[in-house]
Amino acid sequence: MAGSGHELKLLGTWASPFALRVKLALGFKVLSYEDVEEDLRNKSDLLLSSNPVHEKVPVLIHNGKPICESQIIVQYIDEAFVGTGPSLLPADPYERAIARFWAAYVDDKLLASWLQSFRGKTEEEKAEGLKQTLAAVEHMEAAFKEFSKGKPFFGGDSVGYLDVTLGALVAWVHAGEKLYGFRLFDATRSPLLNAWVERFGALDAAKAVLPEADRLVDYAKMRQADAAAAASNN
Amino acid sequence: MAGSGHELKLLGTWASPFALRVKLALGFKVLSYEDVEEDLRNKSDLLLSSNPVHEKVPVLIHNGKPICESQIIVQYIDEAFVGTGPSLLPADPYERAIARFWAAYVDDKLLASWLQSFRGKTEEEKAEGLKQTLAAVEHMEAAFKEFSKGKPFFGGDSVGYLDVTLGALVAWVHAGEKLYGFRLFDATRSPLLNAWVERFGALDAAKAVLPEADRLVDYAKMRQADAAAAASNN
Repeated sequence: MAGSGHELKLLGTWASPFALRVKLALGFKVLSYEDVEEDLRNKSDLLLSSNPVHEKVPVLIHNGKPICESQIIVQYIDEAFVGTGPSLLPADPYERAIARFWAAYVDDKLLASWLQSFRGKTEEEKAEGLKQTLAAVEHMEAAFKEFSKGKPFFGGDSVGYLDVTLGALVAWVHAGEKLYGFRLFDATRSPLLNAWVERFGALDAAKAVLPEADRLVDYAKMRQADAAAAASNN
Repeated sequence: MAGSGHELKLLGTWASPFALRVKLALGFKVLSYEDVEEDLRNKSDLLLSSNPVHEKVPVLIHNGKPICESQIIVQYIDEAFVGTGPSLLPADPYERAIARFWAAYVDDKLLASWLQSFRGKTEEEKAEGLKQTLAAVEHMEAAFKEFSKGKPFFGGDSVGYLDVTLGALVAWVHAGEKLYGFRLFDATRSPLLNAWVERFGALDAAKAVLPEADRLVDYAKMRQADAAAAASNN
């Protein structure tokens, strides 16, 4: 949006699914922005002053005003740039509520349990995480069927809010499979979402934003090594 | 809205702050509805079929269509009944984003840590909960100052989304003080919010909805006794 009076700056990290969510929304809305890569071990003063409550990425700064929390940022982008690119949230209030319900479900249940399935402190915690992940996948598969009504995306013929929300996990679906041998959406348990992963990942706007799985794998291994070293120093 | 073609039914419980939130929104929007009291130990088929994912109250059923999750329901009410009563969310996209940010903060941080401060499994967990609660109160007090700009409510001269979100806790502020000797918002730590609690609670729409503190105290004691009995039977 250079020259249009809008200055957009995104504070994020390239691997964060939450920052990727915002990048996807900006991409689908065809909004240009300054992409500021944060070092989470040494957060910038701009990040700390823009999100003093959580001190987390992503933060979108629009004409100097910071907006925090990825789902809130995506809704903001949709509302502040009406008429620029496609609408992400449906126009109908009921459909909007349903989209928000499932977007919350992605973070509160699907992502939370998936993370627990490999980050749990004990094998028992991990097993419980995996069990809940499989239940969440089953719910999401049914939701996709209901939403898409045979069309390619949650948003119907084109991507919507929920595609963006879940789409941020697509690169991590591939990386997670390589790292842990578990594919979040596969052809057996969730054939519709498995096909959606490929379809979403093939979109130009997604390809422009989502990192390569191998790069995420290297990053995850490096972080695990850092965590192990930190633990052994305690 | 009898006779206006809208049938609204709320599945809730009288003591649930999440159901109270929806009742407050319906009250401020001057919408009439059927108030269905659920027994959470024996959930109705209507509740289970309306919210099969979480099986929780509140659920608002509008002309047969269910909407779940209190903050999503309040936003739905505001969007589906534009022009009926006051708008709860601000019109400006940035202000909407800020209201959503703090509404999420109320549930994810303030309420979560407050609950932990008296429900924690160990004294250590409770102490940590209290510490986080005090930090969250400090953040909320600063947010109120920024939002209200000297006016009586988060929404300015009249109540808005954040007043409704936090207002659902007002009855529990009084009950919590009686139960645990700890007042969430008090005159010393959070004078602005302490005054807001009284101001909000004195509104007709709030008085019509919020239960008496003594009734909540009796209810909480009964639930504690039930939980203790269940634990001793295991």
